[in-house]
Amino acid sequence: MPDYTARLAADVDAVNAAIACALPQKASMVGEAMRYSIANGGKRIRPVLVMECCALCGGAPMESLPFAAAIEMIHTYSLIHDDLPCMDNDDYRRGQLACHRKYGEAIALLAGDALLTHTFLVAAQAAKLSVNARLRGTEVLAQAAGAQGMIGGQMQDLQLENISATREQLEEMNRKKTGELLRAACLLGCIAADAPPAQIAAIENYAGSLGLLFQVTDDILDVTGDAKTLGKPIGSDKTNQKSTWVTLLGLTKARAYCGDLENKAIAALESFGASAGFLRWLTNTIANRSY
Amino acid sequence: MPDYTARLAADVDAVNAAIACALPQKASMVGEAMRYSIANGGKRIRPVLVMECCALCGGAPMESLPFAAAIEMIHTYSLIHDDLPCMDNDDYRRGQLACHRKYGEAIALLAGDALLTHTFLVAAQAAKLSVNARLRGTEVLAQAAGAQGMIGGQMQDLQLENISATREQLEEMNRKKTGELLRAACLLGCIAADAPPAQIAAIENYAGSLGLLFQVTDDILDVTGDAKTLGKPIGSDKTNQKSTWVTLLGLTKARAYCGDLENKAIAALESFGASAGFLRWLTNTIANRSY
Repeated sequence: MPDYTARLAADVDAVNAAIACALPQKASMVGEAMRYSIANGGKRIRPVLVMECCALCGGAPMESLPFAAAIEMIHTYSLIHDDLPCMDNDDYRRGQLACHRKYGEAIALLAGDALLTHTFLVAAQAAKLSVNARLRGTEVLAQAAGAQGMIGGQMQDLQLENISATREQLEEMNRKKTGELLRAACLLGCIAADAPPAQIAAIENYAGSLGLLFQVTDDILDVTGDAKTLGKPIGSDKTNQKSTWVTLLGLTKARAYCGDLENKAIAALESFGASAGFLRWLTNTIANRSY
Repeated sequence: MPDYTARLAADVDAVNAAIACALPQKASMVGEAMRYSIANGGKRIRPVLVMECCALCGGAPMESLPFAAAIEMIHTYSLIHDDLPCMDNDDYRRGQLACHRKYGEAIALLAGDALLTHTFLVAAQAAKLSVNARLRGTEVLAQAAGAQGMIGGQMQDLQLENISATREQLEEMNRKKTGELLRAACLLGCIAADAPPAQIAAIENYAGSLGLLFQVTDDILDVTGDAKTLGKPIGSDKTNQKSTWVTLLGLTKARAYCGDLENKAIAALESFGASAGFLRWLTNTIANRSY
């Protein structure tokens, strides 16, 4: 098997360099808070998906880096705002102080706003992509992150607190809150590669299963994980009375569901043959992650 | 003189219809909060500037409506987040309950985020404009609203609380916090009209003076205005210990500065001749406004 671990590390290095370049250079407290939060040890799953879906569709992954940086900015903004006292009120994120605990609420609010705003500048200015690809990428990002995507999912998440969600409610909330951004990441890779419709359809199919897989493993880790490895306290879903895949199905069935989703995701990549080796490995890594 | 009051009313009607169409249709609490805040009696100065600068440069103002709707969404998001307890902690906006007082902080945060996100979708999907114009418009909006534009100005505003700002600090803060978005509005009209560089330069010059004029009159109204007409309490700058053009220059000199800025703004429109009649009238209306 090729050294996929090294390939992942190389992708992450490229993404981190692109993010550092893409952030506003001039020093200010907001700029500092933006850098603090985005540097805070994320797994960079979304930007890696942008690069690798681009490569899978025959594109040059380096050309997709602005899209990769952009989607990590949206992800980071959503975490900063999610951690605020009026939302989940979390003091820690990945073992470090949450942005508002380090810089205060006002700066955290503005840093989140600025990261979200900057996302669209970075996507629109993706120098090596065509004008059409840049515009389509901007549109995909705004749709995935907006009121009918991620923000809609955050709203549903708030509404499902303290009640027992049905499977349909939980699936819809997860599809929006986590799934839409993962799907956008995969789609941005296709757009950067100017992929044909058949490839886009296969990758969207893959992204659908991956998004759910990601959320189900998250819910399992909140019960079985190690606080130190995860960088956040265990059992926070229970404390916040959240419906999860574990409260809905129980641990054993939730684990079996993970296996199903992993198989479905990998099956969706079949038409790509051997070139999808890295994404198969990444999917397996996500399914079996401990953080 | 042509009936400019009627023309302004027609512009505002067109903008309001465009905003209603552009907002996400599906009902949700976030969607409701977005509509509540954007419907809340704004003067629509920014979108009117988009349409009228487009007309002035020979474009079709109706084609610029998506840009007009987009910039009002950014403006509204900035007001929602500005009113939050961790920022200015204002309970009222234009005589109605602030978004977070009506819907709670979590929904107000998400409604602001969603309006900001939706801005870029609406600009990117401006159906009657070229792909280049849509992309350039997206870029201009993100630059004006971001960490080096409006958000940078909000940060400086926070930093200047409780200290006496110098004229340079006040001017830079105003240029970013209010001026950048007004400048972007004018520029978006030029982009929609595919205006030549000489026209863009003249309009940017106009926008620079207009932005300051807008802020100086705002500062004067906070001292001399009528709370009922303004829809907000008088003297809030003093309560919040903010540096303003009135604290810096005194009322008489601040009024004289207004007159200078009005003359400069109107002079910048000279090359457009009679066709700039409406913008001259609008500039005068802004300088002499009571709300």
